[in-house]
Amino acid sequence: MPSCHVFIATSIDGLIAREDDDIDWLHLPGAEAEDHGYDAFIAGIDAIVMGRGSFDKVVTFDPWPYPLPVVVLSATMTDADIPDRLAGRVSVLDLPPWEVVAHCAARGWNRLYVDGGRVIQSFLRAGLIVDIVLTCIPVILGAGKPLFGALDRDIPLDHLETRAFPSGLTQSSYRVRR
Amino acid sequence: MPSCHVFIATSIDGLIAREDDDIDWLHLPGAEAEDHGYDAFIAGIDAIVMGRGSFDKVVTFDPWPYPLPVVVLSATMTDADIPDRLAGRVSVLDLPPWEVVAHCAARGWNRLYVDGGRVIQSFLRAGLIVDIVLTCIPVILGAGKPLFGALDRDIPLDHLETRAFPSGLTQSSYRVRR
Repeated sequence: MPSCHVFIATSIDGLIAREDDDIDWLHLPGAEAEDHGYDAFIAGIDAIVMGRGSFDKVVTFDPWPYPLPVVVLSATMTDADIPDRLAGRVSVLDLPPWEVVAHCAARGWNRLYVDGGRVIQSFLRAGLIVDIVLTCIPVILGAGKPLFGALDRDIPLDHLETRAFPSGLTQSSYRVRR
Repeated sequence: MPSCHVFIATSIDGLIAREDDDIDWLHLPGAEAEDHGYDAFIAGIDAIVMGRGSFDKVVTFDPWPYPLPVVVLSATMTDADIPDRLAGRVSVLDLPPWEVVAHCAARGWNRLYVDGGRVIQSFLRAGLIVDIVLTCIPVILGAGKPLFGALDRDIPLDHLETRAFPSGLTQSSYRVRR
C-alpha cells in the first residue's frame, strides 16, 4: 500500500492561499537562498496527488514544476482539460482517497505527495497521511483558504523535528500517530 | 502607553479550545516537567486582559491562578458577577481595545497579557499587540475555537526564536512588525 506524505506551507493563521488563490505571501525575503528540504522530499516521492484548485494554480507555471506523474482529483475536470504539453504527465481521477491510493499502487507509485487543502483534509479523514512537514510563514493573513478542516476525531501527531531559518520561516515535521 | 503581549497555545490546526471550551488536550504527556517559559513571561506582566470565555474557564480553577490584576472584557458581565473571593483582583470592562489600554495605563499597568481568542483578535486588529509567543500542541482537533480571525490587512511578524521540547510541543516567538 502506498504511503501518503504532506509537505506544505501555511501562514501563522493556518492558511495556504488567499481567497483568490494568491500565494505571493509565501515568498519571504531571504527564504529563496535557504534549503527548506523540498528537493530532498520530492526526491523520495513517486507521484503527486492534488486537487483541482492546486492544479489550476500550478498549470500557470512555466516550466511545469513537477518531474513526477501528477494525479488531479476533480469531479468536473476530465483528461480532455489537460493541456497537450502535459499529456502523459497529468491524469484526472474522480475517486475517494482509498481508491486513489489503489490506483497509484497499481502503477507502482509507492510514495505519494498529497497536496492542496481539501485533498489533504480528505486523506487525513481517511487515515491515509503518514507524515506532515509543515512550514510556517511569519505573517497573519486574516482571510483565505485553510489547510485544515473538520474532523470527527482528534488526530494526534508525533513531533519529529523543528527548524527555524534566518528568513523567519519555521518548519516542523510530524508523524501521524497510528 | 502600555504594551500588549500574547502567550498562548494552539493545536496544529490553530484552535485554542474545543467547541465546548474543553482544553484537556493541552495537557501533553511529559510536558508538565518542561519549562515553556510561562513563569518568566508572567513575571514581566502587570495585568491580564481576557475575554468572558477565558474568565468563565479560569474562574473554575481552584486556587485562582493569577497573582496579577485581571480585567475581563464583557458587554454582559458586571463587577457583581465576580465571586467575592476575587473581589479587588478582577474587574469588568466593556470598552474597545484602545480604551482598555488607557484604563490600564491610568492604573500604572505597563505590560498587559492579552488572552482569549476574540480579545486577541480585537487587539491585533487595533494594532496593539507587540509580541506573540505561540505554543503548538501536536494534535489536529478538527473542531473548536480558533485563535485567529478575520483581518482587513496582513500582519507581518518578525520571528524571534523557536524551541522544540521532548514532549513534542513547539514554541515560536514573534514580534509584530511596526
